[in-house]
Amino acid sequence: MATTDLLDTLRRSVGAANVLTEGDLSAWELDWRKRWHGRALAVVRPAATAEVAAVVRACAAAHVAVVPQGGNTGMVGGGVPDASGTQVLLSLQRMNRIRAIDEANLTLTADAGCVLQAAQEAARACGLLLPLSLAAEGSCTLGGNLATNAGGTQVLRWGNAREQCLGLEVVTAQGEVWDGLSGLRKDNTGYDLRDLLIGSEGTLGIITAATLKLAPLPAATTTALAACEDLAHCVALLKLARARLGAGLTGFEVMGRFALDLVARHFPALPQPLPGAPWTVLLEQSDIEGEAPARERFESLLGSALEAGVIGDAVVAASLAQSRALWQLRESIPLAQSEEGLNVKHDISLPVSAIPAFVAGTDALLRRHFPGVQLVNFGHLGDGNLHYNVQAPVGVEGQRFLQDHEHTINTLVFDALAPFGGSFSAEHGIGALKRDELAARKSPVALQMMRAVKAALDPLGILNPGRVL
Amino acid sequence: MATTDLLDTLRRSVGAANVLTEGDLSAWELDWRKRWHGRALAVVRPAATAEVAAVVRACAAAHVAVVPQGGNTGMVGGGVPDASGTQVLLSLQRMNRIRAIDEANLTLTADAGCVLQAAQEAARACGLLLPLSLAAEGSCTLGGNLATNAGGTQVLRWGNAREQCLGLEVVTAQGEVWDGLSGLRKDNTGYDLRDLLIGSEGTLGIITAATLKLAPLPAATTTALAACEDLAHCVALLKLARARLGAGLTGFEVMGRFALDLVARHFPALPQPLPGAPWTVLLEQSDIEGEAPARERFESLLGSALEAGVIGDAVVAASLAQSRALWQLRESIPLAQSEEGLNVKHDISLPVSAIPAFVAGTDALLRRHFPGVQLVNFGHLGDGNLHYNVQAPVGVEGQRFLQDHEHTINTLVFDALAPFGGSFSAEHGIGALKRDELAARKSPVALQMMRAVKAALDPLGILNPGRVL
Repeated sequence: MATTDLLDTLRRSVGAANVLTEGDLSAWELDWRKRWHGRALAVVRPAATAEVAAVVRACAAAHVAVVPQGGNTGMVGGGVPDASGTQVLLSLQRMNRIRAIDEANLTLTADAGCVLQAAQEAARACGLLLPLSLAAEGSCTLGGNLATNAGGTQVLRWGNAREQCLGLEVVTAQGEVWDGLSGLRKDNTGYDLRDLLIGSEGTLGIITAATLKLAPLPAATTTALAACEDLAHCVALLKLARARLGAGLTGFEVMGRFALDLVARHFPALPQPLPGAPWTVLLEQSDIEGEAPARERFESLLGSALEAGVIGDAVVAASLAQSRALWQLRESIPLAQSEEGLNVKHDISLPVSAIPAFVAGTDALLRRHFPGVQLVNFGHLGDGNLHYNVQAPVGVEGQRFLQDHEHTINTLVFDALAPFGGSFSAEHGIGALKRDELAARKSPVALQMMRAVKAALDPLGILNPGRVL
Repeated sequence: MATTDLLDTLRRSVGAANVLTEGDLSAWELDWRKRWHGRALAVVRPAATAEVAAVVRACAAAHVAVVPQGGNTGMVGGGVPDASGTQVLLSLQRMNRIRAIDEANLTLTADAGCVLQAAQEAARACGLLLPLSLAAEGSCTLGGNLATNAGGTQVLRWGNAREQCLGLEVVTAQGEVWDGLSGLRKDNTGYDLRDLLIGSEGTLGIITAATLKLAPLPAATTTALAACEDLAHCVALLKLARARLGAGLTGFEVMGRFALDLVARHFPALPQPLPGAPWTVLLEQSDIEGEAPARERFESLLGSALEAGVIGDAVVAASLAQSRALWQLRESIPLAQSEEGLNVKHDISLPVSAIPAFVAGTDALLRRHFPGVQLVNFGHLGDGNLHYNVQAPVGVEGQRFLQDHEHTINTLVFDALAPFGGSFSAEHGIGALKRDELAARKSPVALQMMRAVKAALDPLGILNPGRVL
């Protein structure tokens, strides 16, 4: 099929106004980190599942690649077209309906292009919690969250996006619709296609809708900070907090001294209640009971931790405003890093038990290779997920440091993960950025199985080619 | 390869003493429900992953089918050889080591042949909980639990076997070893092969080891019974209990009057604290706090439910012994059914919100078709999972009723599920028993994807053929 024929078919499928080929298409062609600026054959904006299917059938007939995109907030270049000008960018953003909320079954079903925050708010309006929560929630979409198996700040209690999903509607590489939407907690009828599709980054099928689990809203959310002398003490505090707070412990974030010093430098108005702490832990409790009992439980836990020498100091937020201020500290770290300039970012995970040894060894290794290097270390310790970022020595320009040393630093860090069974991509995925790392680092048997699955489900290779595999 | 050559290779791989071809092999050839009595070419009992791989390579070279088996406690004929005498029965039972427990990471890694109860006990010895729990736990194995994505009594809080697993070691259809063991809570490096393998019933690969999540042991487990006038009230109680007990609510089982009347008939010594209740709910709380606060929470919840007219009566167990007696009531239902004779069993799931309408409609439908039919209705209401069993009218022999009407009854029940989005196999899987139902009832697009995945990973079709697909 000639390109003009394909474009005609696409216009018939979704309406001419929703097939964009001219003007500034950078909202779809440029990723938000501004690392990948592709060029699409067309940006196509279907409004319904049947239209997505028609687009994929037309592209399959023309052997033209389809790149699905949600909110375009990905970190690894998985959702923008390549530079060839031959790929169709399929934006799900017009498909943004909440389809149903079943309060007795605690489920929400929505289109893939529904913005995460809109889904959270729809649940909240029914007195229910949609637990998935991450920095980009104001613009990322449910489809993108599921295609990348997003993590975020509530994984400790609620799991990743995968664990929060009960069913999917998917358009296959053949342009057929698999209606796998489901409100069932248990269903053992055949292979787990749902979880195979989740995290496949648009390379095995295009998610067009999903059913997500909801939960009763917590009665209160309370926050505390604790000062630890090293990461081993942070891990000991995690153990204690799990035992004492049970499922009420919904957040356990760690922040290294240097990360918080960057925040102090760039956001001096933000109070830092534990300014001398080598490591600061942010604990969040959200539970069925009110604020007063939650604060009591925090105080009892932190009192025990102080007595046992696990922590050196602690504060419990006395109000919702104080809680927010503590979270703001944590959330300001990436912003402070941006102010500071470019650095080499890692999104790694390890068994929690291995984190102290990994960080000590890898810090030392990097300092040997790059004297004066500065380590911005923070992350979701409760999930074993660190954002282990490497900043240029004082006086060295960030951009230059990144250009010259990113590959070497990645290799050092990723090699150091291997003996601990760590992962070089905890929550951001593979996309285009880490495709070579996947090919080099994943077990050859696993890669072979993945390639077999890809060839089986997308034999023409039209779904998001060049991503993941 | 001739059969004798294959047997020689197998003997070299696992030792002659572990290749059984003679004598009474019914421990492996006959399923425990005694519905399928197959005949194996040989029963092969490897002691290590490398031996499993060697067995599969030999069978692949000979184009001989391999049927993996754990504790042989499956419900659907998925783990015994067919009657042809041409399939190799591969028993994982000799592979029963706990490989590691990582207390700080809350993980346990064990061989696939490890008995579930042995793994629970190993965790408990470290002060930790392995939450997976089901009736067969004294003899079922972790590999079988994962191959069938087992459910059980703790799904409400902890999910199915799938949700409790972090990583797998698998022997592929080519006899290669995929080391996907992992203690990571977050790992987005490629397709989710783990969840694809879990629940695939040995048709895509043979699970040889797994890493499972652990949790701190609850401080106390308490139990209560409540009487409801109908299933709609049971669902209302579930909503209230979720809101008031949060994650502390770990069990929510429902028992119909006729099911408990069978228990009274066959186990008259078991006390029935709410003998007149049309529906009885068993609630379990296991939490970080002690027994006294848990009982108080139960009393407060049940008091509110009484006032609101959601329940008619309730009792809270005053001791561990009383708690056990209440669970024994629930667990005696299947035993009482056995005493009563054969019946038509179903393991179905529905959105919780749909259960009252489904049961009312389907009860009436069955009574119209089979006047006098008796409905044994109980199950994991909190998970939307009912064991909806159909017993012959008084005076009709169970065996005869089953023979004459099983297919018709299945069709009526499974057809009735469809408009509610229900599933005809919630936790028992497909195996040989429900293969035709899967082919008839699953979406054609899903079946096509499943068949493509099967052909991609097991092109020779040697892994557990005739099961699932």
